[in-house]
Amino acid sequence: MKKTVFFDIDDTLLNTSTFAKLARESAIKTMVDNGLPMTFDEAYSLLKEIINQKGSNYNKHFDVLTKTVLGEENSMLIALGMVTYHNVKFALLRPFPKTTDVLIYLKSKGYKLAVISNGLTIKQWEKLVRLNLHNFFDGVVTSEEVGFEKPNKYIFDEALKKMDCEAENSIMVGNRLDTDCIGAINAGMSSILIDPNITPKEIQKIKDDNLDIKIIKNISEIEDLL
Amino acid sequence: MKKTVFFDIDDTLLNTSTFAKLARESAIKTMVDNGLPMTFDEAYSLLKEIINQKGSNYNKHFDVLTKTVLGEENSMLIALGMVTYHNVKFALLRPFPKTTDVLIYLKSKGYKLAVISNGLTIKQWEKLVRLNLHNFFDGVVTSEEVGFEKPNKYIFDEALKKMDCEAENSIMVGNRLDTDCIGAINAGMSSILIDPNITPKEIQKIKDDNLDIKIIKNISEIEDLL
Repeated sequence: MKKTVFFDIDDTLLNTSTFAKLARESAIKTMVDNGLPMTFDEAYSLLKEIINQKGSNYNKHFDVLTKTVLGEENSMLIALGMVTYHNVKFALLRPFPKTTDVLIYLKSKGYKLAVISNGLTIKQWEKLVRLNLHNFFDGVVTSEEVGFEKPNKYIFDEALKKMDCEAENSIMVGNRLDTDCIGAINAGMSSILIDPNITPKEIQKIKDDNLDIKIIKNISEIEDLL
Repeated sequence: MKKTVFFDIDDTLLNTSTFAKLARESAIKTMVDNGLPMTFDEAYSLLKEIINQKGSNYNKHFDVLTKTVLGEENSMLIALGMVTYHNVKFALLRPFPKTTDVLIYLKSKGYKLAVISNGLTIKQWEKLVRLNLHNFFDGVVTSEEVGFEKPNKYIFDEALKKMDCEAENSIMVGNRLDTDCIGAINAGMSSILIDPNITPKEIQKIKDDNLDIKIIKNISEIEDLL
């Protein structure tokens, strides 16, 4: 039976955190430069609070920001923030070094590839499409679609069903020990954690609990494991 | 009292119809190339039907398209269509020749400038922001905001109120005789119609009805009138 490798997307295949941070900073700078009556630091702190409250997939952060500061929404500032955010985000969107090489390698070895991601289905496909990575994957399973987020076992079960694959023949690759790896283990899969900053304490815990998690520092090391 | 010139946006300041058509054609071509099981002509006709049914500001045309053709939504094809549509649209978005010159000229003559547009507030500001035209306008009034579309008199009344301006001191510039010009006339404003393809019959009707509408072939001729 063909083995399947499941990947997380954000901060596993792509540099999501970096581009999101720079895109938000650029948006706030534009809004302040165009009349939002706060310092950059004040406005950026407020935006981070709003994102924490509303979640990162809420699509009206700038609307709430202008309403909070000005007492009513300011459409020009919202549009300026939004256009700047999107321009910077799409300019900076990149796969991590060697990601495409690793995907080609896995295909050449006969693995099926798929994605398990906490996020909105179309937004996650959009990232793959913009990077022209979409043809590598036979399926994308999102928390939006399934109704449960990683580490909930149910999203892994659904992904296995969708890919017509047994847990014991599948590997989950991600950058989060708790959500990606422990979740996959609980669903009976094995797992690879990409984490250059893992602490000795975490490594010890994985050993103590005898978890089937291999730890690597960057995605290219997958070629040594599979 | 300062006179105010109100502009329509779509097909008056910007080439909306052209870029929207090319963006939709490119999106459909990508979707067909990537597996939507129809010819380009069939898929494009179906998209036009869906746009007619749902309106151009509905944001799930491609979702409906894939569901209609395949029986269920296909997120990869939707994302491919959406990314292609947006990339082409923003690459092609341009003001008509001489538009910026005319706006500078009107500001130099002391006119206040504003927009009256049928559409979504943030989407209309987005177009102005992407073209860096937003600083010319003291206000943007949309049908979304007011709750009525041109030619309804109420949207013109609201725009006059927002700009603190008398109808007799204001001019509406647009590309549609019925929505932009007749609507403005009914609100007591005068009007300029930009229409290189106006028919002799329409010109005769304007004369017969003694309507205060000046007809020009392109936006640069505004400098001869104001």
